[in-house]
This record gives sequence, C-alpha cells and structure tokens, in this order.
Amino acid sequence: CLRVYVFTASSEPYRIERDTFGELKVPSNKYYGAQTVRSTMNFKIGGATERMPIQVIKAFGILKRAAAEVNKDYGLDPKIADAIVKAADEVTEGKLDDHFPLVVWQTGSGTQTNMNVNEVISNRAIEILGGKLGSKDPVHPNDHVNKSQSSNDTFPTAMHIAAAKEVHEVLLPGLQTLHDALEAKAAEFKDIIKIGRTHTQDAVPLSLGQEFGGYVQQVKYSIERVKAAMPRVYELAAGGTAVGTGLNTRIGFAEKVAAKVSALTGLPFVTATNKFEALAAHDALVELSGALNTVACSMMKIANDIRFLGSGPRSGLGELILPENEPGSSIMPGKVNPTQCEAMTMVAAQVMGNHVAVTIGGSNGHFELNVFKPMMIKNVLNSARLLGDASVSFTQNCVVGIQANRERINKLMNESLMLVTALNPHIGYDKAATIAKTAHKEGSTLKATAIKLGYLTEEQFDQWVRPQDMLGPK
Amino acid sequence: CLRVYVFTASSEPYRIERDTFGELKVPSNKYYGAQTVRSTMNFKIGGATERMPIQVIKAFGILKRAAAEVNKDYGLDPKIADAIVKAADEVTEGKLDDHFPLVVWQTGSGTQTNMNVNEVISNRAIEILGGKLGSKDPVHPNDHVNKSQSSNDTFPTAMHIAAAKEVHEVLLPGLQTLHDALEAKAAEFKDIIKIGRTHTQDAVPLSLGQEFGGYVQQVKYSIERVKAAMPRVYELAAGGTAVGTGLNTRIGFAEKVAAKVSALTGLPFVTATNKFEALAAHDALVELSGALNTVACSMMKIANDIRFLGSGPRSGLGELILPENEPGSSIMPGKVNPTQCEAMTMVAAQVMGNHVAVTIGGSNGHFELNVFKPMMIKNVLNSARLLGDASVSFTQNCVVGIQANRERINKLMNESLMLVTALNPHIGYDKAATIAKTAHKEGSTLKATAIKLGYLTEEQFDQWVRPQDMLGPK
Amino acid sequence: CLRVYVFTASSEPYRIERDTFGELKVPSNKYYGAQTVRSTMNFKIGGATERMPIQVIKAFGILKRAAAEVNKDYGLDPKIADAIVKAADEVTEGKLDDHFPLVVWQTGSGTQTNMNVNEVISNRAIEILGGKLGSKDPVHPNDHVNKSQSSNDTFPTAMHIAAAKEVHEVLLPGLQTLHDALEAKAAEFKDIIKIGRTHTQDAVPLSLGQEFGGYVQQVKYSIERVKAAMPRVYELAAGGTAVGTGLNTRIGFAEKVAAKVSALTGLPFVTATNKFEALAAHDALVELSGALNTVACSMMKIANDIRFLGSGPRSGLGELILPENEPGSSIMPGKVNPTQCEAMTMVAAQVMGNHVAVTIGGSNGHFELNVFKPMMIKNVLNSARLLGDASVSFTQNCVVGIQANRERINKLMNESLMLVTALNPHIGYDKAATIAKTAHKEGSTLKATAIKLGYLTEEQFDQWVRPQDMLGPK
Amino acid sequence: CLRVYVFTASSEPYRIERDTFGELKVPSNKYYGAQTVRSTMNFKIGGATERMPIQVIKAFGILKRAAAEVNKDYGLDPKIADAIVKAADEVTEGKLDDHFPLVVWQTGSGTQTNMNVNEVISNRAIEILGGKLGSKDPVHPNDHVNKSQSSNDTFPTAMHIAAAKEVHEVLLPGLQTLHDALEAKAAEFKDIIKIGRTHTQDAVPLSLGQEFGGYVQQVKYSIERVKAAMPRVYELAAGGTAVGTGLNTRIGFAEKVAAKVSALTGLPFVTATNKFEALAAHDALVELSGALNTVACSMMKIANDIRFLGSGPRSGLGELILPENEPGSSIMPGKVNPTQCEAMTMVAAQVMGNHVAVTIGGSNGHFELNVFKPMMIKNVLNSARLLGDASVSFTQNCVVGIQANRERINKLMNESLMLVTALNPHIGYDKAATIAKTAHKEGSTLKATAIKLGYLTEEQFDQWVRPQDMLGPK
Repeated sequence: CLRVYVFTASSEPYRIERDTFGELKVPSNKYYGAQTVRSTMNFKIGGATERMPIQVIKAFGILKRAAAEVNKDYGLDPKIADAIVKAADEVTEGKLDDHFPLVVWQTGSGTQTNMNVNEVISNRAIEILGGKLGSKDPVHPNDHVNKSQSSNDTFPTAMHIAAAKEVHEVLLPGLQTLHDALEAKAAEFKDIIKIGRTHTQDAVPLSLGQEFGGYVQQVKYSIERVKAAMPRVYELAAGGTAVGTGLNTRIGFAEKVAAKVSALTGLPFVTATNKFEALAAHDALVELSGALNTVACSMMKIANDIRFLGSGPRSGLGELILPENEPGSSIMPGKVNPTQCEAMTMVAAQVMGNHVAVTIGGSNGHFELNVFKPMMIKNVLNSARLLGDASVSFTQNCVVGIQANRERINKLMNESLMLVTALNPHIGYDKAATIAKTAHKEGSTLKATAIKLGYLTEEQFDQWVRPQDMLGPK
Repeated sequence: CLRVYVFTASSEPYRIERDTFGELKVPSNKYYGAQTVRSTMNFKIGGATERMPIQVIKAFGILKRAAAEVNKDYGLDPKIADAIVKAADEVTEGKLDDHFPLVVWQTGSGTQTNMNVNEVISNRAIEILGGKLGSKDPVHPNDHVNKSQSSNDTFPTAMHIAAAKEVHEVLLPGLQTLHDALEAKAAEFKDIIKIGRTHTQDAVPLSLGQEFGGYVQQVKYSIERVKAAMPRVYELAAGGTAVGTGLNTRIGFAEKVAAKVSALTGLPFVTATNKFEALAAHDALVELSGALNTVACSMMKIANDIRFLGSGPRSGLGELILPENEPGSSIMPGKVNPTQCEAMTMVAAQVMGNHVAVTIGGSNGHFELNVFKPMMIKNVLNSARLLGDASVSFTQNCVVGIQANRERINKLMNESLMLVTALNPHIGYDKAATIAKTAHKEGSTLKATAIKLGYLTEEQFDQWVRPQDMLGPK
Repeated sequence: CLRVYVFTASSEPYRIERDTFGELKVPSNKYYGAQTVRSTMNFKIGGATERMPIQVIKAFGILKRAAAEVNKDYGLDPKIADAIVKAADEVTEGKLDDHFPLVVWQTGSGTQTNMNVNEVISNRAIEILGGKLGSKDPVHPNDHVNKSQSSNDTFPTAMHIAAAKEVHEVLLPGLQTLHDALEAKAAEFKDIIKIGRTHTQDAVPLSLGQEFGGYVQQVKYSIERVKAAMPRVYELAAGGTAVGTGLNTRIGFAEKVAAKVSALTGLPFVTATNKFEALAAHDALVELSGALNTVACSMMKIANDIRFLGSGPRSGLGELILPENEPGSSIMPGKVNPTQCEAMTMVAAQVMGNHVAVTIGGSNGHFELNVFKPMMIKNVLNSARLLGDASVSFTQNCVVGIQANRERINKLMNESLMLVTALNPHIGYDKAATIAKTAHKEGSTLKATAIKLGYLTEEQFDQWVRPQDMLGPK
Repeated sequence: CLRVYVFTASSEPYRIERDTFGELKVPSNKYYGAQTVRSTMNFKIGGATERMPIQVIKAFGILKRAAAEVNKDYGLDPKIADAIVKAADEVTEGKLDDHFPLVVWQTGSGTQTNMNVNEVISNRAIEILGGKLGSKDPVHPNDHVNKSQSSNDTFPTAMHIAAAKEVHEVLLPGLQTLHDALEAKAAEFKDIIKIGRTHTQDAVPLSLGQEFGGYVQQVKYSIERVKAAMPRVYELAAGGTAVGTGLNTRIGFAEKVAAKVSALTGLPFVTATNKFEALAAHDALVELSGALNTVACSMMKIANDIRFLGSGPRSGLGELILPENEPGSSIMPGKVNPTQCEAMTMVAAQVMGNHVAVTIGGSNGHFELNVFKPMMIKNVLNSARLLGDASVSFTQNCVVGIQANRERINKLMNESLMLVTALNPHIGYDKAATIAKTAHKEGSTLKATAIKLGYLTEEQFDQWVRPQDMLGPK
C-alpha cells in the first residue's frame, strides 16, 4: 500500500544542494536546502497536518534576528548580519511559511527544523545580497545564521518564545474575555434566587449571581495560574549551545540575545539561570501544561453546568435559556443544542490528553538533552490555542446570550424540601429531618408538614424559612 | 489582537443559501451550504490545522453511498439515489476535499460535519442533475441525502469506518513491516553472544538474536492486540438514527447499510448489536485506543533499547551500529543521532496522551448520546496513523540498516562478572557471590579470583563458565 | 521533623541473620531474614499503607509450591521440597501475612519481595524440619526455595497469577452481578416510554428498557473486553530466570511450573511464548489495564446517567427513584444522595489514573528487564479490585432498588417538542422544523401548532405522532 | 465467592445507636455511631487498604477544634465546646485512629467521614462529660460538633489542611534534603571534566559538576513550583456550609475559623475568596497535583541519568559509582542494582497517574458541589508523601554516596570525536565535519586526522582543542 505525501516534490524544477551527507535535489522555488529535503525523505510520518507549528517557525525568526544582531556586535560582518536580520524578519512575518515543510516527528532535538530555518534564512539572505541559492556564500547556514548557536539551545528558545507569545496573544485574552462576560452575567443575575444542587440533588438556595460568581472565580484563577507558570517560560536557553556550557559563544552573548528577544516581543524574557537544565529538561513546559490542564478542568466544570442548567427546553432543568446558534439536528427538526459547551468540553479533554503527552516527554530526557522537544511544544501550543479560541467562541456564541428563565427558576426553588435546613438552629437537625422526610413521603409542603407535626407555628415557619435570608451568614 | 482564519470568505463571489435559521452567503465555488457556513462563523477554534480529519469525510462518502443505495431499494427515486451515489463517490475519492472546511471543535455529535457532507453531496448531485446550487431541488440535504439517518448514527458510523480503514491501510501494514524487519535481524544476530543487562546493570549473557526476538514478540502481539479490538469497531451505528430506536428507518435498513459498507470497503462491518450503546458510548474506540496505547509502550521500549545499545560511537554502549541518515547537529560536526528512535518515542508519547483524551471523552457521554465524537475520532486516527507511519519510517531508515559491532559486543561480554551465575548449581549462591564481589573489588577476573579463593579448579571453571552454554535451560 | 514507620523494629527481641552484605538484627517472631530487614531500612517510603499487595504474596506462595514440586521431579531432596510446599501453602492461605512488611517502592524488579518470600518460606520450612531460624539449613532461601528461579522471572509470574486471580475472583463476578441486575431492570422497564435526551436536550422517545439495555450492553462488552486481554496474562515468565534464557533451569522446567500453577489455580496458565519479552516488557498488564480503563469509561457513563435521571427529588429530572441508603447531609435534614453512583465514578477516575501509571511504567523497560514491576501490579490489582467491589456495591445498594417514576416520565415525554420528528417522512424536515420552532416560541403544543400552520389535519397528527410507534424501524 | 472485610463487626459486644434512617448495632469499644456503621455496610469497596487517609482525619481534628472555639465565641455552651476541643485534639494526636474505619470509596462529598468524625468527637466528648455513648446528649454530632458546618465545606477544608501539612512536613523537607545533597555533589564534582551526551550520543564536554548542577536547578525549581501552588491551597472553604452561601453560620465565622486553623498549624490559611468555587471545584488541588506532576518529571530525569551514568560495573557507561545497599539478585551472585533510582522512578510514574485521576475528578464537579473529593485528596496526599519520602530515601541511600569514577570519565572524554566542535570558529563547520567523519571511519584520532587532511597544524590543534577550555563562553 503506497501512500504519497504532499511534500515529496519530484517532477518540479530543481537545483542541487549539498550537506555533509552529499548532494540532493531541492525544488527551485524553495529557499530550503539539502538537510530539509533529507528530513522530508527520512520522516514520512503523518503528512502535512503534522507539520511543525508555524508559531515555532516564527519564533525562530525572532531568535535568528536577535542572534545576528548580537553576533554583529561581536564582529560578524555587518553586511551578512543585516541580510540575516532581513530574512529572519520575513520568517517572523509569515512571508516564507511555504518553505517549512518538516513534520513534528523528526529528530527529537528539532535540529532539522533549526537547519530548515538556517537554510531558508541563508538562501534568502544570499538572494538579498545577490548571490546564488545553495552556494552557502556569502551567508553560510551553519557558520553565519547558526553562529554561536546549536539546535540544542535554539530549539528550546524558540519553544519558549512561541509558548509565551501564544499564551499572551491567544490564551490570556481569551480567558479575560470569558471572565468579563461571566462577571457581567453574575452581576445581571445577582437578585435571582434559585435552588442549589449538590450531588446533583436539590439543596438549599443561592442566587444565580452567586452561582455564576463561582465560575468567575475559576476563570480569574485560571488567568493567575497561567501567569504564575510564566516566569520559568521566560527563561531562554540561548547561549547554552550544544550541552549547556556555551561552547563557541562569547561571554555576554546569552544575556544580550535574551534582551534582544525581549525587546522584539515586548515580553520579559531573560537568559536561563542554568543552561544545563534548560536543554536537558523541559520542566517549564510541563509546568505550563499543568496550568493549562487546570484551566481545562475549570472549563469542563463551567461548560457542563451551563449545558445542564440549560437543558430542556421542556424536559430538562431549564433554568437557563441558551442562545440558539444553528440547527441542532439533521433529523429532529427545530432542535437546538448547547454546541458551544460541547466544543469547550471537547477542548478540555484534548488539553488533558495533551498534558499527559507533555508529561511523558518531559520525564524522558537523558543526560544533556531532552529529545521530545517538537512533540512537547506542539502539544503546549495546541492546548494554549484551543483554550484561548474556545474561550472566545464560548463567550461570544453562548455566555453573552444566556438568559435566566426566571419563572422556572422560581417554581423549582419554591418546591424544594431543602429549605428545611433553615430550621436547624431553631428546632434541631433531627426534627427538621422528620419534617423533610414526611413531606417527601406524603408529597406535601414543608410548611403544612411542619405545622401538622406540631414542631412550629405558621408564623414561625414564615419567619424562619425565607429563601432571601438564606443567601449568606447572619 | 485580531486573528483571521482561512475559512472566513468575505470578498469572494457568493450565492445565498438558507437553513432553518435564515439566509447566509456561501462562496460560489463551494458545494457546501448554509449550515456549513454557519459553523465556520460559530466555531473559530484552532484554524485550518484543526480541521475534521479527511478520513472521516471519506468514510462519510462511503456511508452516504451505501445509504442511498439502500434507500433506493426502499423506494427513493432512482434518479436522486444515483446522483447521490455519484457525488458520494467523489467525496470518497478525495475530489471534493476543499469543500469540507469545518474544524473538530464544533458540536460534539459531529452534526455540522454530517450536514456539511449532506450539503456538498446534495449540491453536487443537483449539479449532476442540472439543477441550481442551493435550491435543495431535486436533491434535499436532509430529506434525501440524510434519509433514514441522523447525525447521531451516521457520525459514529463514519468514525468506525475511518478508524477501521486507517488500522487496515496504515497501522497494521506498518507494524507488519516492522515485525518482519526485526525478525530478519533476530535471525541475522542469532549467533552473537552478548552481555545481558538488567536494572541497566551487567547481567548474564544472551544472544543478540534472543534480544531482538523479544522485540519481535512485542510487535507480533501489537498486531494481535489491535486485531483483537476490531470486532467491536466493525459494529456500525447506522440505522439507530436519533436516539438508537431507528425511528424513521425501515426494518432491515440497518443491516443492509452495514452490508453495503462492508462490500464497499472489503472489511467485515456489521450492524451494531445495540444501537443505544453505539450512540451513547464509544467504548469501542476507547478499547481500540487502549490497544494503540499498548502498542506505543512496546514501541517506546524497542526504540529506547536500540538507541542505548547504539549509543556512542566511542563513549556509549556501542553494541549496535545504527544507520547514519542525516547530519545530527548544527554545531557538532560529524555527529550522527538515533533520530528514527526519537521520532518513534515522540510518537509513542503522543499516542499515550491521545489515549487519555479519548478516555476522558469516552467516559463523559450523557443519556442517549456521547458528544465528544469529533475529538475522539481525531485522536484515534492520529494515533493509528502516527504509529503506522513511524513503524515504516523506523524500519526503513533504522532497523534494516542496524549492524552488530561484534568486536565490542564480545569484549563487553567477556569482561562481565555476572558469568559467575553459572557456578550457582555447583558451589552455591553464597560462594559465587564471594567470587564476584572479590573480583569486582580487586579489579580481577572471575577465573583468577575463583581459583585464588580455592572454590574450584581452573578446569572446572573452564568447563562450567561457558557463555555459549548459558543461553538456555539444560 | 521525625517520622517513625511501623516497620522499624527496634526494642523487640531479635536474632541475627546475614546476607551477602553482612549481619542484621531480625525480630525473633518473624520468619523473614536479613534481606527483608535491609529493605525496610533502605526504603522508608510511604509506610504501611504502601505495602506490596497481599495478592502478590499469595501468588508467590502458589509459585513457590509449584517450583518446589517441579524441582523435586528434577532431583531436589524430597524432604526439603515437601517442607517448602507446606510453608508455601501457608503463605497462600494467608497464615503468614504479618511476615511481609515490604513496600511497593523498592527495587523495580521486586527482588526484595521475592527474597522476603524466599526467606519466610525457608525459615518456616526449617522450623517444620526442626532446624534453627536464620541458619539457612537445611533449607536455603536461594539454593532451595529460589532454585531454578530469579526474581526477574518469578516476580512477573506472581504478577500474572495475582492479576488473573483478582480478575476471576473479584472483577468478573462483580461485573456479572451488575450485568444481571441491569438486565433485570431493562426487562422490568421495557414498556415505559420516555423522552430521549441527546446533547442533554429533549429528543425523540425511547423506552426506559431500551435505555437500560444500552447499559447492559456496555457491561456485557466490559466482561468480553477483560476476557479478551487474559490470554496474554495467562502466559507465565517462570523458567526465564535472570534474562529470559532460562540459565540454571532444566529443559521442561518452565512448562511444568506453568502446568502446576494452572492445576493449583484452576486457570489456564501456560509458559510464556517468549521469555525475553515476558521479563523486559509488561505489555500484557498494560493491555489488561487498558481493558479496565475501558470498563471504567462504561461505569462512569452508567453511574452518571443514573444519578442525573434520579436527580431531584423535586427540582431535577426525577425519572428514576433511587434507593435511600443513608442520611445524605450533615446540614440538610432529610437529604438523600446518589452515593453509590459517586463511589463508582470516583473508582472510575482512579482506574483511569492507575492506567496512566501502568502505561508509563510499561513503556520504560530497558534491555532485559522492566523495573517498574511492583508499581505496575499494584495499580492493576487496585483497578481490578475497585471495579469489582464497586460493581457489587453499586448493584446491591443502588441498581436493584431503582424504581421508575412513571408519572413524571409520562409527563415529560408528552410535553416534548421532538415528537415532531415523526412528521419528517410525511411533510419534510423544513415544515416539521417550522412547527417545532413555532410551538416552542409560542409555548404551544405540537398538534395545535401543526394544525394552525395548515400542514396537516388533526387526524393525521394523531395517526402519525404516536410515541409508542417511535421505538423502532417500521 | 464470599469476601469478608475487616470492618464488618458481627460477634463483638455492641450498643444500639440511631440516625435518621433507624437503629444500628455499633461495636461497644468504638466511639463512632450509626452513620459510620451504615457506611461500612453500604461501601464494601477495597477493604482496609483503601481507608480514608489518616491525614484527612487528623485535619478534621484541627478543624473541629477551631470550629468549636469559634462557636463558643458565638454562644455555644462552653462546657460542650471545651469537651469537643479536647476530643478533637485526641483525633489530631492520633489517639483515636482505630475509630475511623471508612474507605475512600463512599459518598463523593466525604459526608460519611465528616459524620464519622462528628460521631467520634460527640461520643468521646459525651464520655468526657460523663454521659452515655450514643445518647447524643449533651453533645450532639450534628447540632454541636458540626455546628455552623456542612460536609460540603468541612471536607474540602480538611482536604486543604491535610494537603498543606503533608507538603510542609513531608514533601518540601524531602525535596530540600535532596537539593542540598545534589548541590554538595555538584560542588564536589566541579573539576571533573567529562564527555557530554546528547541524543544519548557522544557530544562536547562539560564538568560533572555542571551536569549535577542541572539536577540541582531542577530540584530548586521543584520546590518553587510546589510553593507557587500553595496560596490557593491555603484558602479554606469553612464557612460556606451546604452550597457556599454560609447558611446557618454567623458573619465572621469563616474568617475566625481560618485564623484558628492557621494558629493551630502555623500555616498561613485564610478563608476562601469565593466559597462557591471552593465547594464546587477543586482546581486548587488539580493545580497542586500539577506541580507534583512536574516534580515527578524532574525526579524521573535525575534518577534515570544517575542509573545510566552508574551502569556497569564493567559493561555500562560506568562514570558514577553508586552505593551498594543490598544484594541485587536472587540468582546473580554479587549483583548490585540502582534500586533507589528504581523506587524513585516508580514513584514518579505513580504521581503522574495520580495526577490524571485528580484531573478527571477535578473536571467532573456539577452545580454547587464536586463529588470526587475523597478520591482527589487521597491521590494528592499519596503523591506528596511518596515524592517526599522517596526524595529522602534516594538522598540518604544513593546520592550522598555517589562517587565519580575519574579514570573512566577521563578515558571516555579523551576518546570523543565531538571535541572537533572547538574547531568550528577556526576552520568552519564543513571542514570540521570532514575531520570527525574521517576519524570515525578510519578509527583514528581527531588530531592525526586533522593534520593528515592538512586543515591545521599540530600546534594549532593542541591550542584549539582543549576540553578544559570548552566549559563556557569565551
């Protein structure tokens, strides 16, 4: 059974490039070189949908620019450095996306993607300088673009840049959007008293605003949790080179590169405290993924609650009316479903699974290098993106349009037997239990039963059992 | 921060289509309709890389053809049925891939993808019959293409078809390829005696062929495990419609559709024993994912062993010489790395993570429907594909080229202190231990120490301690 | 901060025993020896609650008896063999449970537990034969009790024996109990027509018996899935000794031991096809754990459904009346909760977590030995036990007592708008949708709306929309 | 198949107690009451090894004391309050451990354990005051011991107290112990230059001190990560009562209880910001578990490295000499294994599995209550304890005794071909690669090959390739 992958280019016009393993045909219209082609030949795993996330490529653009500028300070030919900067910017801006065909499932250090970037920038810089593609002259992929660098420190640097940017550009704004919408709903619903439910069973009342306030708190803490994980993500491995020692770099290189990256991104990146740890372990990403996993738990809870509270329209709990966004069924006409909740809960499950993959990868580094890098960053970026996007979608297409079904909420609340709890301080737990159990058995009301049992008077009942007085301590 | 997604079509030429929610602009060059457009508007989650796996779309092509043929038997206008069949075939053949823009993160029943398929087939069939796109005449997406069907039974049917095909077309051939290559290596290495290692420490000898024989067994059982999970994957939900009762189908429809799908795919699909279970739970996919998870464990073990046994070239274990496929480092010239092992172990970690996502989704169905369907099938397909592709890549680019470093293997084996174990039956465990510990402490050989301690003669040692006699029971 | 562990024996009377590392004090009233004491000193991890599961110890009793009998056939002094058999039986019978103090968190091969068993059996056998405890004479823990064995093959053998017994004695009977109770309920409820729910929202009707029939199918397949994983669990590593070669065993030993174990347990154990695989990988336990994980998903679904369907008593779905087993709240008098569902879903979550631990352990074997053995078997046994026990508890304390609230079920079903689906074949999806949407908007009934819209007559409605006709294909 | 559980008391002397469900026999020598007995009858799941962690019981002792003192401030009879305080102290001190027989697998709110505590304290307080056990007079389990409380707020409060104490008393001291030992080793090894390994393959050199410095950093960050998760664990739910509103409490009760608990424990507990979130979600424990999961990854990496670097003694990498703690094999005399590394890596795998269980439980709360509480806290406590204990064991029995095998380290380092990397800045990557590849192919040294190829002089080689100059930037 033969399967052909999109990135195998055969009949196109080509040029010859070479690496230390020999010569290879490279498509004429591509900037990448021999090592990239070699990787497409050796790693036919998963095809185009499994490509290295473009965020990693763009982060590499930022890093390669920063490194070139610092190398220029340390003596790299300014003409070469400036051409690298220009080409790197094009990578960051997404102008060269088609030149990065490699999949995640390659070498575990991401070396092939680093070389892909080195080759593309080298060839594009050569072009800018009027040279010949593939000549490695005047801009060599290793000696110039990769100067003072190794895949082993650049790839984790790109991982951290990409993760931090995704967190700041997608995840945190998404969570904030959701937070604000839920907070507005909590305020809108603050006077609606409803039955509480514990163990999915009827319990004492609370306000719908209080219930939504719990969700607000969860999202608020989601944001805090993600932010709390960031300090270690801001640490960049750049300057550690091959094993963390910084061999073939200059004193100060690491710090200057981190400062440049920080300036380019507006994020507080610093050089890693310990480069050995920064190459050999990716605990910082496991930690971040753990924060995302916690966010996923919060999202699962909130989305589940909302779909159950909005269940119906006639045979469910029916306390909330959810926006109707699209036809819900191909067979049941007029059906509307809590589809945004479903997308969110699916995202939550995915994030929890991604987290296990990240955990397993993070635990399996050996000696001076963890070689689960591409897999780890793929999953972290996926989790951050999905949670961020889903938060916005859930907010815009569900939360902001939620209405309270006041009539039904009121009906359910008033029928509840658990209002009996308010009698505990007056007649004790055991008598209160007798009232509730008798009323339940006889299908009667609490008040009628309480009076019939002779535990209190009608006036006492009316005075003591008031839902509006049961919403807080006294 | 604005992010634009590829599937928002704005300035293109369009036509107007409508669903039960109203009118929408649809790109003129697309066969899909209003419900598909609506989904792209409501679920901006993840972008193009998060699209519904194309295998699910193609499986839908098979199903829709089968359903149309059976509906024809039950009275559907043959002209309409035949046009549906033709359009469905084009879906299966991949001719219409561009017309399926929806992402995984939509409604949890996959309704929107089912409607996407219904709309594309309807419009293409209308076109075939000379009608007007969007008119739903003479081929209606619900009344004809979806006839006797619901998303709730068609989507899980497509899930099972897609999973079974991926297993048969990618995973099992990949595992067989790996199995055969390892088996050939086990035979090639059968006479090479080497030191065994337990707890990563020196142990008694075995042959390199025996060591590879363990891997062969793992892959053999991997194949068996996957096959053992398939009977329940071959069960198709089609015919259950909305909640499993089969409302709006005809007696026999379910069985006939399964038979058609079986004929079209060559796989032994049958109608599900219990349609309620088939809609509300996806235990069959959790089970299959569990088998893939076990395969992943096997792969992790094999790939780890091979990279450690091939570590070096000078300062590692160095028993195996792995093929050199590409430059291994952007900074360390001449370095070659076990990159295929790395890709394989990253895949294994991903599969384990995917499995947790599938498990969480599978456990969270409610009442008559599990609504984690798109997420579940995405992960199962991803795991099957990655394991299958990686097995082939690992085989072709690593296993077949593995050579034994006989000189080094021999050297390490002969130095081992654990050969002393052969003396147990002759002089007892305690004396044997004294020999080994003394030799270790004094940096001496077992033979010299044994004789010096007076436990045996040189002749006895030579007779009793023979690696070639230590490879099996006596 | 000082923490004292129960197993540090200091002021008790003691005897001196020795191993190859020297002498140690052993409590006089214990049969174990120096290596066991040494392990308690070196592995103060977790304390008494983290002890090696007693099922593993008992399985070792079976194995040691079997090995002694086979060794006797091959020439072991019958007096010694018989004493070992007697002592081993006492281990199996649970008479010596107090003599196994070691925790799971020891050497990853379980060597210390194997030696604990060897020491206890040796000393007990010495006692039986009138010798002196700790003298290793006439029964030596290594030379006699462990004869033809290694920890590396005995521990995985005990793992498989223990797992298979737990599955047969606890898990499968538990699942069968649950299956039968659900099946009886499905039969009892077969004529009760109720509203179906998809996406947690109102859908077309089914019978309560059909709904429970889905659960029955899940449990039926749970049993099948567990059984399908057993053939590879029945394979015993015994006879592989240190690295799988069978060094220091006799030809036929492996097969005879497996046959003895099979006879002693009544389970179809056989010798492992490939001993290298059986020591270095524990894929069979990962596979079994995968089956348990699938069972957990089924249990989560069933228990969740039952608690939601039983939610109330007044403000929930209220279709089921669950048995009232205990006071449900320390503050809300008269509250009753679906506690058996909660125990079951907590068990399900634990099993899913255990499965990840087993997976990680199973993937991390190296060379000739996997050294996550104690952790793996602990989790597999825990999962099997919890699922089995919880199934029985859930059955006896919940399932058998479930009653249908027919009045409420009927009321909810008749109010549903989704009965409109039955009109699809008669008036088409679009008109049916208009009826449902209008009725929903106007708070009216389907019939009144349908007639008002002029789509059909009252007679047609009564003829076409009959819940009792909507439970199957026509 | 009958299984008997230790907690079924049948033939013992008994007294009669009653709850709202009726009368039950309670063992005369136990302080617990009817609800506890009822739970032992209804939840026969797992037996004695599955009991609620004693840390939760002791935390309840602290909480019940704090609540009694605050209730006294608000008017509870001082005689009753003081007796409760005394009894609660006995619970905290572990004097009443035998009176808490309930298993984890009970109601998901932990109500039965809360009532177990209420009953034991009530009866013990009654005894102190000279009353009759079971009379509920003068100290009622609900009206007095549980005053102003619900299981729904007390159980999560006990969860947080128990988790925080375990973290502070076991985990953090354990990690600090490990940190300090590794730091001392890093200092001891700072001048030992060794070969680095990336992708498990030979790479450029670093010092053994640098390598251990990476581990030090991982443990340092482990401590930081755990501490970073604590602020939200310090938030106590007490005062929220049944659904978070604080019904039946007094204004100020929540804050005062938190202050009392803080005073009693010396930990900075505060009342939870939002009680609804504190009952309905346990994100704080998911977050803490995520931190433990990251710690587990660090531990797995460190322990794996150490066992591989210490592999041998003759046929492994052999750079480290690990302490010999016990006989390593029941069959291979004299074998010594890295058993502490194995215990640690097994613990790591368990913690990762526990984390998934916690995650699943944390994601499945509904409405006003998460009912996976007992399962969640069991796993969090288990993870904290195992990591803390294993860190101490690993430190004392392995890390402090690690010796560097300087001779072997030096030999391996000098043979490495990757020293060629130092030539990059002088002759370029491509020529350096040619040297390394030629030397590898010809089995020659770098120096000889470099000179033979004419790329540099002997003097240049000696000046440029100096391992001691390759340990940092220049």
